[in-house]
Amino acid sequence: MAGILDGLRVVEGSAFVAVPLAGMTLAQMGADVIRFDRLQGGLDSGRWPLAPLGKSLFWAGLNKGKRSIAVDMSRPEGRELITRTITAPGKDAGVFLTNLRVRGWMDYETLSQHRKDLIMVTLLGDRHGRPQVDYTVNPALGIPDITGPEDHEGPVANALPAWDLIAGHTCVSSVLAAERHRLRKGEGQEVTLTLKDIAAATLGHLGMIGDAVLNEAERGKSGNALYGAYGQDFVCADGARIMVIGLTSRQWKGLVSTTDKDAELAALARRTGCDLADEGVRWALRTEITAILAPWFAERSSDEVARAFDKAKLTWSKFRTTKQAVAEDPDLGPENPMFEDLLQEGLGSFPVPGHAADFSALLREPPRPAPVLGANTEEILSEVTGLDDTEIAHLFDRGIVARGNPPEFDTAA
Amino acid sequence: MAGILDGLRVVEGSAFVAVPLAGMTLAQMGADVIRFDRLQGGLDSGRWPLAPLGKSLFWAGLNKGKRSIAVDMSRPEGRELITRTITAPGKDAGVFLTNLRVRGWMDYETLSQHRKDLIMVTLLGDRHGRPQVDYTVNPALGIPDITGPEDHEGPVANALPAWDLIAGHTCVSSVLAAERHRLRKGEGQEVTLTLKDIAAATLGHLGMIGDAVLNEAERGKSGNALYGAYGQDFVCADGARIMVIGLTSRQWKGLVSTTDKDAELAALARRTGCDLADEGVRWALRTEITAILAPWFAERSSDEVARAFDKAKLTWSKFRTTKQAVAEDPDLGPENPMFEDLLQEGLGSFPVPGHAADFSALLREPPRPAPVLGANTEEILSEVTGLDDTEIAHLFDRGIVARGNPPEFDTAA
Repeated sequence: MAGILDGLRVVEGSAFVAVPLAGMTLAQMGADVIRFDRLQGGLDSGRWPLAPLGKSLFWAGLNKGKRSIAVDMSRPEGRELITRTITAPGKDAGVFLTNLRVRGWMDYETLSQHRKDLIMVTLLGDRHGRPQVDYTVNPALGIPDITGPEDHEGPVANALPAWDLIAGHTCVSSVLAAERHRLRKGEGQEVTLTLKDIAAATLGHLGMIGDAVLNEAERGKSGNALYGAYGQDFVCADGARIMVIGLTSRQWKGLVSTTDKDAELAALARRTGCDLADEGVRWALRTEITAILAPWFAERSSDEVARAFDKAKLTWSKFRTTKQAVAEDPDLGPENPMFEDLLQEGLGSFPVPGHAADFSALLREPPRPAPVLGANTEEILSEVTGLDDTEIAHLFDRGIVARGNPPEFDTAA
Repeated sequence: MAGILDGLRVVEGSAFVAVPLAGMTLAQMGADVIRFDRLQGGLDSGRWPLAPLGKSLFWAGLNKGKRSIAVDMSRPEGRELITRTITAPGKDAGVFLTNLRVRGWMDYETLSQHRKDLIMVTLLGDRHGRPQVDYTVNPALGIPDITGPEDHEGPVANALPAWDLIAGHTCVSSVLAAERHRLRKGEGQEVTLTLKDIAAATLGHLGMIGDAVLNEAERGKSGNALYGAYGQDFVCADGARIMVIGLTSRQWKGLVSTTDKDAELAALARRTGCDLADEGVRWALRTEITAILAPWFAERSSDEVARAFDKAKLTWSKFRTTKQAVAEDPDLGPENPMFEDLLQEGLGSFPVPGHAADFSALLREPPRPAPVLGANTEEILSEVTGLDDTEIAHLFDRGIVARGNPPEFDTAA
């Protein structure tokens, strides 16, 4: 099936979250993405979570729909193969995506000598060349300081690797922007991004740098409250916890009238001399507002609350674990056209997502599983690298390349 | 200065985080992005954080480099102007990016009658058409359940609107992918995304859906520990808190030798019969490992720790507040070529980020401030919408459009 990026070929040398996600996203949009790895698999081949038999669900998730070539890059012949694969001819080829920082044979200066219009997108840790990961960038920028319950003293890390995910998607748009430029101007280039710059820019975009410079107060923790307006979690009579949003005027009015708290909230407004129609006032008075609303939730089951909120078209949700969500929510399974139940070797069967965007000009691309390490070595060497059968056989004989999952190179942890 | 997306024109009708971020990102890559708003400004015009005089730093951050047109869309003439602006001719125009769900005049079916090859990228809440925000999607998928200290009972929300940010960047790549398709095939299309699908797909990519289906255990909270390997926060003798990563074999060995805990960790391995070279073992034994390492930090100032870790090239960082980070870290100010100190009217002067990617074929685009509401109404009506001076004057006279910041329509909260 043709995807929206049909024809585009990207070679990926990567590990961990961001760049594998970028390559996988391009593959799910229809690009031919070739991931190369060492013979024993990449640094991320055993990352958690693992399937019951020990194979990495993480790796399977972030490498869906790619082709895999396994090469011994410690030998010059292996390095030459990768160079030839990255710089292979083709109008829509010559795109290299990486977070491996290898000076010399794998840098832009060297590779672009083999293909002048090469596009190389490199994600680094920070602009000083230091490695950084989501778990170090986040504390350095202050997010853990504003995360967590108001009465909790220490910083609270993100469980979601948000910066990695954002960086991966920024790599995707960088590839597409550079390829657009090449289509028009005929020139390739090096695109350099860093995880820390992506995070720092995002703080700026959200107004947090201006806030830190211009306002004297530190923002502080605000628990599960929606920052800057009203939104709060409440516990219902059955113990279930609900999040409800009063951000826009429509949402706020709907929340007030559904909970029948008009009079008490009007009294709060009179007592404080503040206008609750102002979202900033709702933020400042969130504790008082929550105290007024809480009994309404405490008196009702979460089902009653759900019915009332759906009837009023409020924006709300129920807190649950991922396991509960997967068990209960049809949006997380094959009833949602984005998902398909896939049986994957060594893993088992579970719902696997395709690309989140639905492009109306094409049928939706179904998700394809990740390759076994080296599964496509032979075809890539033939079709892309341009070797003949004798050359390929010789490389296998000498152990410079490997094909799909020989027991000694099994990626299972 | 020419940006990497030079020539591309995108019309944006949006509010809040994701789609404004998408338009701003395209603008920072050099696209001509026209944001249209009601005469009184969008729903997000007063969003926190605010500058000392009350103007929104959030809005200023997410609308940098765009042009602004203010139109009364409650009147048919206003709706016609927006239609004409979105569907204006030009090979690189005809791209509409929105999260406003307006059936009828502003839907794809209607707009594409005015321009067959229109690209319309729409971000919705969920696939059922319900509104969702970052604060509702996150609890519904289980992230707050795994966030926070191990001994904390309740869910902990993200302070960073990660899903909105990821959705915004996914909109950017959707625009570029659809435009690439149009360049090649001549056809436009509707691209539909939902915040919840983007989040659900991401859980799948990270292996969390497979984990929920295949493994019986719920993941649970793990405080500030790096999931699945070793990474932990430690308090130093001066009270400062440090995050250090032992994810790869190189990082782990470096951490062990720098803290001189080889013997104690070898004893732990013997006692448990486990091999600490396995990242999953480090995860399982993280509490024991942390107990062994903690005294080393408690005996040293954070400066001593920093020197030792830098010398060993470890991946680590210091926890700080955003205010401290902005005050201390040159990566968050004009010493970093991504930032420039900009003086913005009604806000003040502070470091403002440009696009995080550095495209070597072009000079880096400096950040440009957000427009005042309606600042470009006249030029857009003339250059893009194609009206003559008489028609434009008539629209102003009748109050169907407004120009930059008349006092009665000031966006300040």
